[in-house]
Amino acid sequence: MKSGPVTLKDIANQLGVSMGTVSRALKDYPGISDKTKEAVRALAKELKYRPNPVAQNLKSQRSKIIGVVCPKIFHTFFSAAINGIMEVADESGYSVILVQTNESFEKELKETSVLLESPLEGLLVSSTFETSNYDHIQRFQDYGIPVVQFDRITDDLESSRILVDDYEGAFTATQHLIEQGCRRIALVRGQLIPLIQQRVQGFLDALKDQGVPFREDLVFENTTSDIEEGIVLAREITSLKERPDAIFAFADVTALGLIMGLKKEGVKIPEDIAVVGFNDSTMSTLVEPSLTAIAQPAFQMGRKAAETLLHEIEVLKNDDEPIHSQTILKTELIVRASSLKRP
Amino acid sequence: MKSGPVTLKDIANQLGVSMGTVSRALKDYPGISDKTKEAVRALAKELKYRPNPVAQNLKSQRSKIIGVVCPKIFHTFFSAAINGIMEVADESGYSVILVQTNESFEKELKETSVLLESPLEGLLVSSTFETSNYDHIQRFQDYGIPVVQFDRITDDLESSRILVDDYEGAFTATQHLIEQGCRRIALVRGQLIPLIQQRVQGFLDALKDQGVPFREDLVFENTTSDIEEGIVLAREITSLKERPDAIFAFADVTALGLIMGLKKEGVKIPEDIAVVGFNDSTMSTLVEPSLTAIAQPAFQMGRKAAETLLHEIEVLKNDDEPIHSQTILKTELIVRASSLKRP
Repeated sequence: MKSGPVTLKDIANQLGVSMGTVSRALKDYPGISDKTKEAVRALAKELKYRPNPVAQNLKSQRSKIIGVVCPKIFHTFFSAAINGIMEVADESGYSVILVQTNESFEKELKETSVLLESPLEGLLVSSTFETSNYDHIQRFQDYGIPVVQFDRITDDLESSRILVDDYEGAFTATQHLIEQGCRRIALVRGQLIPLIQQRVQGFLDALKDQGVPFREDLVFENTTSDIEEGIVLAREITSLKERPDAIFAFADVTALGLIMGLKKEGVKIPEDIAVVGFNDSTMSTLVEPSLTAIAQPAFQMGRKAAETLLHEIEVLKNDDEPIHSQTILKTELIVRASSLKRP
Repeated sequence: MKSGPVTLKDIANQLGVSMGTVSRALKDYPGISDKTKEAVRALAKELKYRPNPVAQNLKSQRSKIIGVVCPKIFHTFFSAAINGIMEVADESGYSVILVQTNESFEKELKETSVLLESPLEGLLVSSTFETSNYDHIQRFQDYGIPVVQFDRITDDLESSRILVDDYEGAFTATQHLIEQGCRRIALVRGQLIPLIQQRVQGFLDALKDQGVPFREDLVFENTTSDIEEGIVLAREITSLKERPDAIFAFADVTALGLIMGLKKEGVKIPEDIAVVGFNDSTMSTLVEPSLTAIAQPAFQMGRKAAETLLHEIEVLKNDDEPIHSQTILKTELIVRASSLKRP
């Protein structure tokens, strides 16, 4: 038995009809058979269904607010995505309420419960590394508030989703390093959430494709993803007996720290070790040599996520059910000095 | 006649008593004379006073949410301040709802009206460049929701405030440049809001103090405050007949762009032109030469602002009136290679 209040979805599930049908039946809309209306009303009564006051209010009065749940607001990728979201919201006269979960599932539960009390018309979610249960997000949908997932995606939630082609990005970057003559390519990756798994697969497939051996001893996991960590890692890597001739780092800030750290250790970049990052930011052009990186369309992802959500809000207002979509955005390899062994 | 609903403050003003007295009188608390209670009730009836449902609700039920209104979320200074706010909120089990005004007064009005509908316990505000009327912020106070101003401060609002010693920061940086032998110091400043005026005054006083002439022809105003603008500005400055021997930029991102642009034009930094920025960030250590900057305690400002607000929330819960405070945080000059002419 599920906990929490009975929702439209519960009624819809038990009767095997859509949420829209239940909603329209309860409002005595035309186009629904009397038999269905009867069944819906009877079950609603039996289950002691009470409409969510917030969601109810939205039907008549539009708050023009959307919520955004994000692991880290001040992360180059997410900040660009949020800027994209805010641009679209601005264009449409919507306000954006932002909350940060700091990669903590517990905090995600708390912040979403706060948002559930706010008069939101829709929700954009990018979950934490820790999240594996999505009931707290599902509740918004149960209350008729549309949800769109971006970047951190799960199949456990039926919703529209916007993601980046992480596989292709990693494949292209690895291929580029191989073309530059690199054969001992180190990998610095984050925790193995699905999008990181996609990148690792792209990396492995590019190696295989070109007949370059995968060196498991050259895989490093980063945790804090900051410049300091890159500097420490550079020291570790340069102290290896057999140094790599290239490093592919999934976090651009780590890649910047690697460049700073390798230079300190007297390593020539890219001659001795080439460096490539994932996610391109202004910082990439500040270092010397400037950093080759996979540019993720983070701003466009934010825009697309907000556009999709606003569209679904409109559809729901018309008492229709939105058709969920999946958008995969392409990445781009920006070649700069840090990897150009063969100009 | 003021517009908007009648508030506790209106009643307090007309009777010449405190808001706390009005609040306690209406609730029939002990410790208030019958005469006062009578007068308050009579005026409340006459003015058709209705308690704000949100504020009312807060007296009994604590939402544990604070709101933050900020011109630009993704600005090195504000992002650090927001991180400080979020840290304190986390420690105290509070949630933070963030809105961005994008330096638009119109948007500030809209976003604050959204927040006024949310069950906030308190509000942290840093206003836009355009804001000169603060009635929309005052309304929170009228409803008994405490407000604390940070960084962008106005005397038009009675509240606690946390600011940085901008005058001293600019004075110290200018003094440092003069000590390095600089005599023709260019200034790149933003729009003349009070805190920028403070910095300009610090700059002028340091020049005067050391008998260095102020060169009005070497004052530049930046608008977008991004790297691109710094690069363009570098071209403009190097094309001058008489080049400056130092540039003091109030925006660190502009200073970074200046370093990149000056290098492109073949200028030696700091030998030909020294560069100093205001506000220190990780980016300062990424460029070569690394950037000398005034470090603003943005994170501490955020922490202090949140601590002050949470304290005032507690005081108000106990039906006392908080005593407003002003906290001025000191800056620190971080000397790096971009200004060290005399190591």
